[in-house]
This record gives sequence, C-alpha cells and structure tokens, in this order.
Amino acid sequence: MEVDEIVEGILSGNKRYLARAITYVENEFPEGKEILKRVYGRTGKAHVVGITGFPGVGKSTIVSKLTQEFRRRGKTVGIVAIDPGSPFTGGALLGDRLRMDGLDTNRDLWIDPGVFFRSMSSRGRAGGLAAKTGDAVRLMDAFGFDVVLVETVGAGQSEVDIIEVADTSIVALMPEMGDDIQINKAGILEIGDIYVVNKADLGGAEKTERWIKAMLMMDEEAVEILTKTTHAQEYEVQSGKIFDKIARSGWKPPVIKTIADKGEGIPELADAIEEHFKYLKESGMLIETRKKRLTREMTEILVNEIKKYLRSNRAVDFDKIVEKVTSNNLDPHTAVEKILKSILK
Amino acid sequence: MEVDEIVEGILSGNKRYLARAITYVENEFPEGKEILKRVYGRTGKAHVVGITGFPGVGKSTIVSKLTQEFRRRGKTVGIVAIDPGSPFTGGALLGDRLRMDGLDTNRDLWIDPGVFFRSMSSRGRAGGLAAKTGDAVRLMDAFGFDVVLVETVGAGQSEVDIIEVADTSIVALMPEMGDDIQINKAGILEIGDIYVVNKADLGGAEKTERWIKAMLMMDEEAVEILTKTTHAQEYEVQSGKIFDKIARSGWKPPVIKTIADKGEGIPELADAIEEHFKYLKESGMLIETRKKRLTREMTEILVNEIKKYLRSNRAVDFDKIVEKVTSNNLDPHTAVEKILKSILK
Repeated sequence: MEVDEIVEGILSGNKRYLARAITYVENEFPEGKEILKRVYGRTGKAHVVGITGFPGVGKSTIVSKLTQEFRRRGKTVGIVAIDPGSPFTGGALLGDRLRMDGLDTNRDLWIDPGVFFRSMSSRGRAGGLAAKTGDAVRLMDAFGFDVVLVETVGAGQSEVDIIEVADTSIVALMPEMGDDIQINKAGILEIGDIYVVNKADLGGAEKTERWIKAMLMMDEEAVEILTKTTHAQEYEVQSGKIFDKIARSGWKPPVIKTIADKGEGIPELADAIEEHFKYLKESGMLIETRKKRLTREMTEILVNEIKKYLRSNRAVDFDKIVEKVTSNNLDPHTAVEKILKSILK
Repeated sequence: MEVDEIVEGILSGNKRYLARAITYVENEFPEGKEILKRVYGRTGKAHVVGITGFPGVGKSTIVSKLTQEFRRRGKTVGIVAIDPGSPFTGGALLGDRLRMDGLDTNRDLWIDPGVFFRSMSSRGRAGGLAAKTGDAVRLMDAFGFDVVLVETVGAGQSEVDIIEVADTSIVALMPEMGDDIQINKAGILEIGDIYVVNKADLGGAEKTERWIKAMLMMDEEAVEILTKTTHAQEYEVQSGKIFDKIARSGWKPPVIKTIADKGEGIPELADAIEEHFKYLKESGMLIETRKKRLTREMTEILVNEIKKYLRSNRAVDFDKIVEKVTSNNLDPHTAVEKILKSILK
C-alpha cells in the first residue's frame, strides 16, 4: 500500500488505512514515519487519556464501559492497549486475542464506526515503546477521534513512561490490593490526575478510598489516623510529594468508586475526565503537558535512530568491542567513550 | 574522597568505600566511572542472581533467608535492591528505610561482615537504570562477594531489563496471584531459570506449581487439563516460547515451593541456584549470558552519554525544537532527523 493512499484513507476516515498506518509505525517501517509527517498538521485535537494499574483491577472493563459512555455523549473513541507480551518473541497476536476477549462482552463496540481498538505489544527490548505509543496516538488523533484511551498493564517505570503520552492519567486500584505500601512502592500513585477504586462492591473499598484521600491530603481525619500507624513516615513522604504535585498543577485529583462490570460510577468517571481536560485547556497546562510529552518522545526517537546508525556504521564494530569487554580486556565505560569519539562530530 | 582512596578501600575490603563508590555510580558522578575502570579487572567472579515478582510475594523475605543460607555455606553476599520509588522525586530514602525494615527481622545480617545491602531508587526518567544496576553489581563483584543478589519489585519491561544483569534469574510467585493469564501478561514468566512459589502454606500452591510445570511442559497430565480449558491457546503460545527457551539453553527450570518466613524450601532454592551456576559454567552459557548482558549495558551507557552530549551541545537547541513541534510547526520525526544531521559524523 502506498503512503499517498494511506494518508488519504486516514484523512477520509477509513479505519482500514488507520490500522495499516499503526502497523507500519509499530514495526518501524519507513512508511510509518512518512505517514506521520504528512498527517501531523491534523493532530492536537484529541483528548488523550491514559489508564494504568496492576493486573486484575479491571482496566479493560473500565475502558470498555468508558468507551460506551463517551459514545453516548456523542464522542468518538480510539483505544490503544499496551500488552507487555513476551520479552523474547513479542506477544501481539496473543495479546490481541486476549484483549478482544476482554471487550467481547460489549460486542456492539466492535461494529460501532465511532470506535477503534488497537493493541500494541511491548515486545522484547521495547526500545521506543513510549514513542511508538505516541505515534499510534497521533495517528488516531489525526484520524479524528475525540478521545484516545491508552491502557497499560501493571506498574513500574515502563508504565510510567507510557502513561506520560496522556493529557489525563487515571490510576486504577481495587480494594484488596495488598497493603498500602505495596502500592506505594510501585511508584504509580503520584501519576494520577484521577483515581479509580474499581470493584467497589468488594469489601474494603472505603478503606482504600480514604487511604488515597489521605495521601492527597483531602481527608484530615484519615491523615490523623495514618500518622499514628507504623507507616506514618512513608505516608508523610509520599503525600508530601503528591501535595507538591497538586500545588504545581492546581488540580485536585478526584477519587471515584466504580463497579465497572455493572457500569456503576462510569458516568462520574467520564465527567471527571472531561472536567480535567477543560481544566488543562483553561489553565494553559495543556501546552505544558504536551511539551513535556514531546520532549520525552523526541528523546526516545533520537535514541532509536542512533542505535540504528550504530548498527549500520562500519567505523564501529560494536560486537567486537563487546567481546573485548566480556573478556575483561576493556571496561564498558572506556569502550563507550571510544565508540562516541568515532561517531560524534 | 579521592578515587585512589576509594579504589584502595574497595580492594582491601572496606565496605564504607564500596558504599561510597555505589553512591557515585548512582548519581552519575565522574568519579564513579573512574573507579569502575580501575576495578574492572577484578570483576567476573561473583555469581549474579536476580529475583523478581509482583509486590507482596515476599521477595525481601526470600532474599533475607537466602542470604543467611549462603552465609551458612561459607559464601559472602552482596545485595542490590531496586526500589521503584517515585517517578517524580525519587524514593531512595524512603525505599532504604522500607527495605531495612524488611531485613530487620534478621538483624544478625546487619552486623555480619560477609553481607552488604544496598537499595537503589529507580527514580524519575530512570534512564540507565539497568546500566547503573550493572555498575553497582560490578562494584560488589570487584569487592569480592561470592554471590550478588539483585531484587526488583513488580513486573513489566523495566523489571525484565534489570533482571538481565543476572546470571541466574528467579521468578517468585505466590499461590493466590489472580488468574493465570494475569501473570502471563506481565511477561515475566519466560525469564525464569528458577521458579519459586512462596507462601506455599496458603491454599492453591499445588495448583500454581502444576500450572507453572505445565507451562514448562514438565507435567503432561497438567498440560492435558490445561488444553481443555478456555485458555488453551494462550497456554500453547506461551509454553511454546518457554519450550524454545529451554531448548536453546538446555536448562530445565525447577519449581520450588517455599515458606520463606519459616525458612522452608530455602536450602532447596540455594541448591538450585548453585546448580544453575555450575550448569552455566560447564556448558559455556555463562560467557554467552554475560556477552548479552554487556551488549545491553553498553547500549544503555551509550544512550545516556549521547543524551548528555545533546544537552551540552551548542549547535542544537533541543528545547527550541521541541517548542516548534508542540506548536505543530514541525513533526517529531523530521525534527530528530535534523538534530542527528548536526551531531553525527
């Protein structure tokens, strides 16, 4: 398929061409870049919403119900789901099937022309995953979706990286998620613009909600209680950081209880998402957020290009140098210095 | 403190200097690199063992009990614990305290001269975490520890990256870890050389054990059962990958049940770790594993150096270019092409 045809197809709203373009981007075909360049002028309108949380909290269900809610509000929705897949051989095929199963309970979404779903594998060395996600989001944005939802599994740095492509970040938790410090350690708590306590019909939802509110310094009584526990110091440090973030952004993250599989709390979640977007636009924070995002993405693109350059550069035999380092004849830092001298101006 | 003094301190077995060197490495002080260069000839002897798994499975307890077991066997042990900390301001301080609490139940470890513990924050943009972990491990190796344990929290790509500094990788699970596919998705299942089902006194340990063995194609009856469930296809794809890995490496990962807080199963785990190391050495796989590891690390070091170069390079005003991209006057890929043209030979 030609670039011209795909660009035209995207701009005329044909999903088949959008799917193809994302495949090109995901597999780093040169056509992908070319398409992105050509549609870039049309981007910037979509509201990009990220949702992250540990496996099992019900992210897929939330995404699916939220999509239905946005459709009811007359908005079109593109969905990018990041599947960690396998570090060895990738898991896109498997991932797609699993994801589809997840959305299968809402079969009407699959025939809705205002919805488009795509899963991306985080694959092996995963270099450039945030950049690729950013590109897929940009393609959906150019296609014209009002909302682009990005779903990532689990926690950890890579999740934080990916979620940063979003204008609005949702952290999804559930009541019985181990003890509080476990969630803390995962380092995802500070990235939320909105918190969701899903499966609120399970016991302990109130406790979790109060604990999050205590972290956000939004429940003085709960803060009181927490500072009397053995975890007082951790809470203070953590909530201090969140407090700084709130002070910087001026946005107080709401905590919303949902029972996603019954649709409960979903309209409230959609309200909160729309409200946050409005806040970002009116406060000027949207430009700031997106500048930060693009800095990250461009750095990642740059790094990938340099890796490619290195593999194709004849002046440097990377493998041979690695062998020298492995046999203790050269330390890795000196080795890298040598390589840099031969490739940088 | 001078580089000479620290190098001498490390080579003479003074832990204070080792701690200082790791701090230099963690904070990217130039002294860190210099120290590494100087001690590099002394590295390569330690057995580097990684342990990963979701929060709550009891990794810290396993590490602590395993350390005691290795000490009983006359081996010295260095421990590097990666703390995801906060994506905004880092969490080293908090992390250290938490970790210490974790090891606190074995206070004798703290006064044992044959044990050294260090936690590292995975911090903000986390560029170079695997490389930094590799450097910390190398310093402990040069110091002379027989075993270096690397503990990482949770799952996801960054965990896979970090765990790849290890010769032997342990994946820790616990019985009630949600449904099987959740663990699958996390993408950590394939990286194990040894599997641990901790908290085996909880219900369901046998089920988890059998399921892992089915994945490893080590329990035909369980495979039979699994292929009749609705998850048959996922199991086939996943176990196919694991099977390929086993075929490549020739190592059949054992599955060990432990009740770490009671010390049960820990000697068996230590046996398996030692056996795997022996296998790596005798089969020649150790060199291969380490070559792979160094390729990764050097790539990461390289990338970080280029980022630094970019920030200090006057020919390229990265921030200004980002602004152009944010205002839709330039697409990110064209922008990166321009930057590369001005810095690469």
